[in-house]
Amino acid sequence: MGNDRITSLFNIQYPIIQAGMIWASGWKLASAVSNSGGLGIIGAGSMYPDILKEHIQKCQQSTQRPFAVNVPLLYPDIEKIMDIIVAHDVKIVFTSAGNPAKWTPFLKEKGIKVVHVVSSVKFAKKAEEIGVDAVVAEGFEAGGHNGREETTTFTLIPMLRKAVNIPVIAAGGIGNGQAILAAMVLGADAAQIGTRFVASHEASSHRSFKEKVVESQEGDTMLTLKELAPVRMMKNKFFEEIQGLYQKGTSKEELKTHLGRARAKRGMFEGDLDEGELEIGQISGLIDEILPARLIVKNLIKEFNKAKEEMLNYRLE
Amino acid sequence: MGNDRITSLFNIQYPIIQAGMIWASGWKLASAVSNSGGLGIIGAGSMYPDILKEHIQKCQQSTQRPFAVNVPLLYPDIEKIMDIIVAHDVKIVFTSAGNPAKWTPFLKEKGIKVVHVVSSVKFAKKAEEIGVDAVVAEGFEAGGHNGREETTTFTLIPMLRKAVNIPVIAAGGIGNGQAILAAMVLGADAAQIGTRFVASHEASSHRSFKEKVVESQEGDTMLTLKELAPVRMMKNKFFEEIQGLYQKGTSKEELKTHLGRARAKRGMFEGDLDEGELEIGQISGLIDEILPARLIVKNLIKEFNKAKEEMLNYRLE
Repeated sequence: MGNDRITSLFNIQYPIIQAGMIWASGWKLASAVSNSGGLGIIGAGSMYPDILKEHIQKCQQSTQRPFAVNVPLLYPDIEKIMDIIVAHDVKIVFTSAGNPAKWTPFLKEKGIKVVHVVSSVKFAKKAEEIGVDAVVAEGFEAGGHNGREETTTFTLIPMLRKAVNIPVIAAGGIGNGQAILAAMVLGADAAQIGTRFVASHEASSHRSFKEKVVESQEGDTMLTLKELAPVRMMKNKFFEEIQGLYQKGTSKEELKTHLGRARAKRGMFEGDLDEGELEIGQISGLIDEILPARLIVKNLIKEFNKAKEEMLNYRLE
Repeated sequence: MGNDRITSLFNIQYPIIQAGMIWASGWKLASAVSNSGGLGIIGAGSMYPDILKEHIQKCQQSTQRPFAVNVPLLYPDIEKIMDIIVAHDVKIVFTSAGNPAKWTPFLKEKGIKVVHVVSSVKFAKKAEEIGVDAVVAEGFEAGGHNGREETTTFTLIPMLRKAVNIPVIAAGGIGNGQAILAAMVLGADAAQIGTRFVASHEASSHRSFKEKVVESQEGDTMLTLKELAPVRMMKNKFFEEIQGLYQKGTSKEELKTHLGRARAKRGMFEGDLDEGELEIGQISGLIDEILPARLIVKNLIKEFNKAKEEMLNYRLE
């Protein structure tokens, strides 16, 4: 393949995208990843418009290389966010959590590259029709908000690959270089990595949360809140509280009111590991060190190439 | 690596195992896969002891090559089943759905190779301690009975690889040769394939069910009955009925009584696509043809080698 569809599209060195993550990926992480040859993404989901503006400006001051902004399309101040993105000459936008029909043409007219995050074949096809440049295919194992079909990375990638012609960026469960190679073998053009970058020096996540990611084991996360918007998080006290509400037969509306929006900030940004919501992927069980983003990228490349070398002797006949 | 741990262990040509599946994998499918160079498995889960005996004998008449029997350890007639396996000189046993502590030493003493199916790191470590020869690591995307941690193939394989020294056979989501290669890149020694072999001429599954597998799309299966024993099945009328019972707050015991055991046979063996239980994996969405088992194996090999060749051009630097 010698596949360069994503590196050409974004004008980056490696097909490695750092996921836009609330309370984790500000300008520090995004610029560090971009400076290391990947694509850094500022996660606008947890930022007021003015804060986002500041992060874009600082990111531009910190790197000459391309970076992107991730915008959840259900964001209440979406118009303001889009105006800031255009006004500050952001070149790449990743949209998620919503319908890309309205904003894709708006951004494309301004010469901005648009990528939409999907978790099913159906929505990937729709996004392609609307004219996005690529899709992120996010599997069930991914942290944070997730799809209703519960399709995993291992099955979603080959099915999406068959269904669309635009480049496919695999996301969910990718924490080392072997996994990037595996995703490409399954048909992906590039990999988006979230959880591994939460445990980085540059992530704005609270130190206690980063340490929790490092300590966690296989089986420590679960997808819940399926009736509202499915989200994968650590099984902490807050998670158990949600499970308790389910067992009592609490209604959707009650759940919503009870939970509020502040729990994610409280957990991931303020470090309240019991009462806060800790969004993270299944692959956290494999991660055992907090590292600088530059070293994470370097390790991913090294592991990728080593995994490839090891497969050379392999032939079935 | 030129990894031959599984092919040496079983004395087979390819690191391809056909999953033992209720109402699908009798002697016809198992012998066809073994004759094609993989390891065929008779699924004892849906067989009375006398029926199993017949299948073992017919399989031995149909192939000179190794094959295995899969035994769910919660099977009511487990003693009889094990006696038949020993008496008829079966060389390899895959155990699942239960604790391998009792039966592993029994089988090993008779010189039988033992593999246990797990879906978590914790149970893989236990199985290794007990002395099994290998584990099957079954991800959340797999059809039929499944684990409570909901860990996917993409994340389970690297975590298991790190946790145990015995060979790891990846299962769940593997429907083509690219996926076998991807599983090996993630750390697996071999692949176990179920769903792809349901849509084979030799599977004893009802023709209508095979056709349903071919027609199905991404998102058409779901894991349910989590309080009893989690099981992945097609979203048919029977599935909707279960969801309805959940919404009414039906108890575990009521669920059990209501469902009974006959639904799986009715769906998969008798072809009642509405009222029957149709156990199948997520990768059914990728499968679009009913083929002879020999051709399925041949295609897997061809796809594997092609994917490997394409990977060679790939280098990150």
